[in-house]
Amino acid sequence: MPNVERRLSEMGTVLPKPWVLPPDITIPVSLVRARGKRVLVSGHVPLDPEGAVAGPFGRVGAEVSAEQGQQVAQAVLLAILASLKHELGDLDRIGAWLRVYGMVCAAPGFTAFPMLMNGASSVIAEAFGPEVGNHARVAVGVAALPFNVPVEIEAEVELA
Amino acid sequence: MPNVERRLSEMGTVLPKPWVLPPDITIPVSLVRARGKRVLVSGHVPLDPEGAVAGPFGRVGAEVSAEQGQQVAQAVLLAILASLKHELGDLDRIGAWLRVYGMVCAAPGFTAFPMLMNGASSVIAEAFGPEVGNHARVAVGVAALPFNVPVEIEAEVELA
Amino acid sequence: MPNVERRLSEMGTVLPKPWVLPPDITIPVSLVRARGKRVLVSGHVPLDPEGAVAGPFGRVGAEVSAEQGQQVAQAVLLAILASLKHELGDLDRIGAWLRVYGMVCAAPGFTAFPMLMNGASSVIAEAFGPEVGNHARVAVGVAALPFNVPVEIEAEVELA
Repeated sequence: MPNVERRLSEMGTVLPKPWVLPPDITIPVSLVRARGKRVLVSGHVPLDPEGAVAGPFGRVGAEVSAEQGQQVAQAVLLAILASLKHELGDLDRIGAWLRVYGMVCAAPGFTAFPMLMNGASSVIAEAFGPEVGNHARVAVGVAALPFNVPVEIEAEVELA
Repeated sequence: MPNVERRLSEMGTVLPKPWVLPPDITIPVSLVRARGKRVLVSGHVPLDPEGAVAGPFGRVGAEVSAEQGQQVAQAVLLAILASLKHELGDLDRIGAWLRVYGMVCAAPGFTAFPMLMNGASSVIAEAFGPEVGNHARVAVGVAALPFNVPVEIEAEVELA
Repeated sequence: MPNVERRLSEMGTVLPKPWVLPPDITIPVSLVRARGKRVLVSGHVPLDPEGAVAGPFGRVGAEVSAEQGQQVAQAVLLAILASLKHELGDLDRIGAWLRVYGMVCAAPGFTAFPMLMNGASSVIAEAFGPEVGNHARVAVGVAALPFNVPVEIEAEVELA
């Protein structure tokens, strides 16, 4: 088993199946756009094990608690890893994480976005190690997200 | 006529003139920043044929309908193509679309951002073909946009 | 003294100390992620001279005036320069600014984001000159920002 996937398994995480869009939604774009060594990852949402968009739904600080929000951020990151594995074949081909852009739909008054996004960044750090997993990050509160999910994440990685 | 422009013409689309800012607004930045093969495109808004910011104005789901929103997304993409043509001379120099970041100002309850952004992505796919036009995408609801436009799009492409 | 820092000094600007996070916040990411010639800058906030998050806090157009917002955008840019200097050793190593992504937390009705973000872009233009300092830009209104700051900026630069 490749290194990253072995570590993910040791961490007790399970990747979902790649994102399956509802049949009435056609999106003429790619979940992952690889070009040379650059790999750009579309905005991802949390998925259930079968690859369908998963709850909880709503805003962090209202329908969704801060703790749940951190778990959702982790789930979004696992959905990104599922797409990257599907595209690249092997997560060990990733030589460097570069950028993680976290969008959080929050109720008025909730601004602990960095803490929430640590749910995603800590999985990267643990699975890829501090050197490969190091990344620039943004954590921002947005007005609304597709499918009413509380967290969406965009990313860019580089091939080894 | 270059290939991409011929296809745009066959599609019945017309590029606006490049963005003309109001005389009291001075923005010390570029609409397009080219560096080596990378071409980064500033956030663009919908333009009328003369290159002035165009309506409808307001929020999708309130002052602007979902159908209008999709047309606005297409208009923003055409404004981006006008800037790229102005900068590059010829749209056929684009070897790959990489990233399209769509910001939608929406009324509470409207979250069909992917569908709306297809108004932009489908023009890219049709004019550039599925291989060159393939791109990673984000579609997110924001709190407000400059000039009160309903859609703003940022992008990155790569030269051939 | 290196060129860029001499110009910053002539402009009367002073870089803050690098960002010091509160002791209870651990963020497993980097303020600056350098990889080859690419340098990605995490979302930054305004800092006081000692590197702590600085006010004014709240929304532009309500608790924070438009003039203050422009000053905050400048302060965020100086915080980014402090991080870049800490990472690169010398700001003259920057060969090109590429992208500046400005997020503004505004009260309903305030949409003069481009004007506000000129507070940041004008420092870049003056300190680095029009060729190196040229950049693509986005200026968007967001729902909320970490620490309740009114402006957050993400960026990418390229080494010479």
